[in-house]
Amino acid sequence: MTSVFDAATTVVPDGAGRYRADLGAGWSIGGGLNGGYLLATIARAVGAAVPGKPDPLAVSATYLSASRPGPAEVDVRVLRDGGSVATASAELRQGDDVRIAALASFGDLAGADAEGGFRTSALAPDLPPLEQCVSNKAAPVDLETATLLSRFDMRFHPDDVGWAVGRPDGSGRLRAWFRLEDDREPDVYALLLVLDALPPVSFTHGAMGWAPTIELTAHLRARPAPGWLRVVHASRTTSAGLFEEDCEVWDAAGRLVAQSRQLARWPRP
Amino acid sequence: MTSVFDAATTVVPDGAGRYRADLGAGWSIGGGLNGGYLLATIARAVGAAVPGKPDPLAVSATYLSASRPGPAEVDVRVLRDGGSVATASAELRQGDDVRIAALASFGDLAGADAEGGFRTSALAPDLPPLEQCVSNKAAPVDLETATLLSRFDMRFHPDDVGWAVGRPDGSGRLRAWFRLEDDREPDVYALLLVLDALPPVSFTHGAMGWAPTIELTAHLRARPAPGWLRVVHASRTTSAGLFEEDCEVWDAAGRLVAQSRQLARWPRP
Repeated sequence: MTSVFDAATTVVPDGAGRYRADLGAGWSIGGGLNGGYLLATIARAVGAAVPGKPDPLAVSATYLSASRPGPAEVDVRVLRDGGSVATASAELRQGDDVRIAALASFGDLAGADAEGGFRTSALAPDLPPLEQCVSNKAAPVDLETATLLSRFDMRFHPDDVGWAVGRPDGSGRLRAWFRLEDDREPDVYALLLVLDALPPVSFTHGAMGWAPTIELTAHLRARPAPGWLRVVHASRTTSAGLFEEDCEVWDAAGRLVAQSRQLARWPRP
Repeated sequence: MTSVFDAATTVVPDGAGRYRADLGAGWSIGGGLNGGYLLATIARAVGAAVPGKPDPLAVSATYLSASRPGPAEVDVRVLRDGGSVATASAELRQGDDVRIAALASFGDLAGADAEGGFRTSALAPDLPPLEQCVSNKAAPVDLETATLLSRFDMRFHPDDVGWAVGRPDGSGRLRAWFRLEDDREPDVYALLLVLDALPPVSFTHGAMGWAPTIELTAHLRARPAPGWLRVVHASRTTSAGLFEEDCEVWDAAGRLVAQSRQLARWPRP
């Protein structure tokens, strides 16, 4: 039984460096399809083009126009594939429109699971037990324009959701437990989705509009253990109408398995 | 009088989307030319291709092979130039070799200087006064293979340089004052250089080899004020032979004007 996520990110080779995708209407949020979902789809195409390099290590994407449900192509150009890292550029297109341009480096994260292969001074976020957190299923949103919310089970830290009841705390921080629907366990592709799955931290400042991503770079550091993930989004600076959003994803073994930073446009009032 | 930095990053248009550069031998470190110097040179070419968008906002680069002093071409393809942001892909080439592939978004950071245009909760690093810090001029290095060191005046926090005298502290952190030679004041292009100018934080773990960058993404948040910059490099996680390096650059007005994260290969013993 193929999970909803795997089905929706499937790519089919269609000649030299080209992959076809069928973007799912079930991943809509705000004005288009979710950026993490699109990032995972692009990475699937790059991964298919660099056999022997199973894991995305770094993926940078610049978002040019909002993607729509339906057919899309991903054109992959392998720039270098030698030694332990392969690098490619990729463009996701719909018709004549380039939706996303990306650069991706792939390699092998198996070494992260070896003795001494993972060393960190990072501390996992403090989240109350699941049952004390606030579920996204309680969100007062229109599920027809935010189909994305049905894809996940998210449980927010109760201190971080004042904005949902009209009391934004201005913290610039969101913390949540995260799990895909149909209990699909996380892997490196799912992590690319998770890095852009939470609402924008601009919500914590009471700015409830859409915050379009200009650029997002993801680094994957280890293959995640099965189980619930913990996700933290944080921002410190808004300047010239732009803010950064740092995301960290922690697996059930307490490891920082992925991190990203995006530059996004502050929502228009 | 043109500064050394401006002269060395000059690009000359040479037909549709192509710019010629002459990479300077004075920017060598380890096995090639400095990554920040190359990033600034690429950004010069993109900036020339998107008139009316004066400031790099986000630049992501993937480093494919070591650049050498001498002629190079930067091929720029503008992907989108509408509204307040222009986005381009760019490749730096020497002969048949692509050295670096990049994606860059340009816009206008003037709004950061307007009333209310810059809001932050970030705190500037605590650095002792210049005269209590340790100058890079005191470094016991071979200046023929590290010409880069003559380009800057760097003054390291005295707590962060144990590695230079055989006592690495394992902190994963480096803090320094920074100024370009010939007293050239910082601007957005110089910031791209500064984001990759300090030694790798792997030095603080006693790993004194070269740490090649795989991917680096820079975000510029404001045009820097004249004067000394403060730079902080930090890393928390080494996994599967790779480590991340976060860099923050603060201007003389105490603002976080630029930040970057790179994924680099842990030095081989």
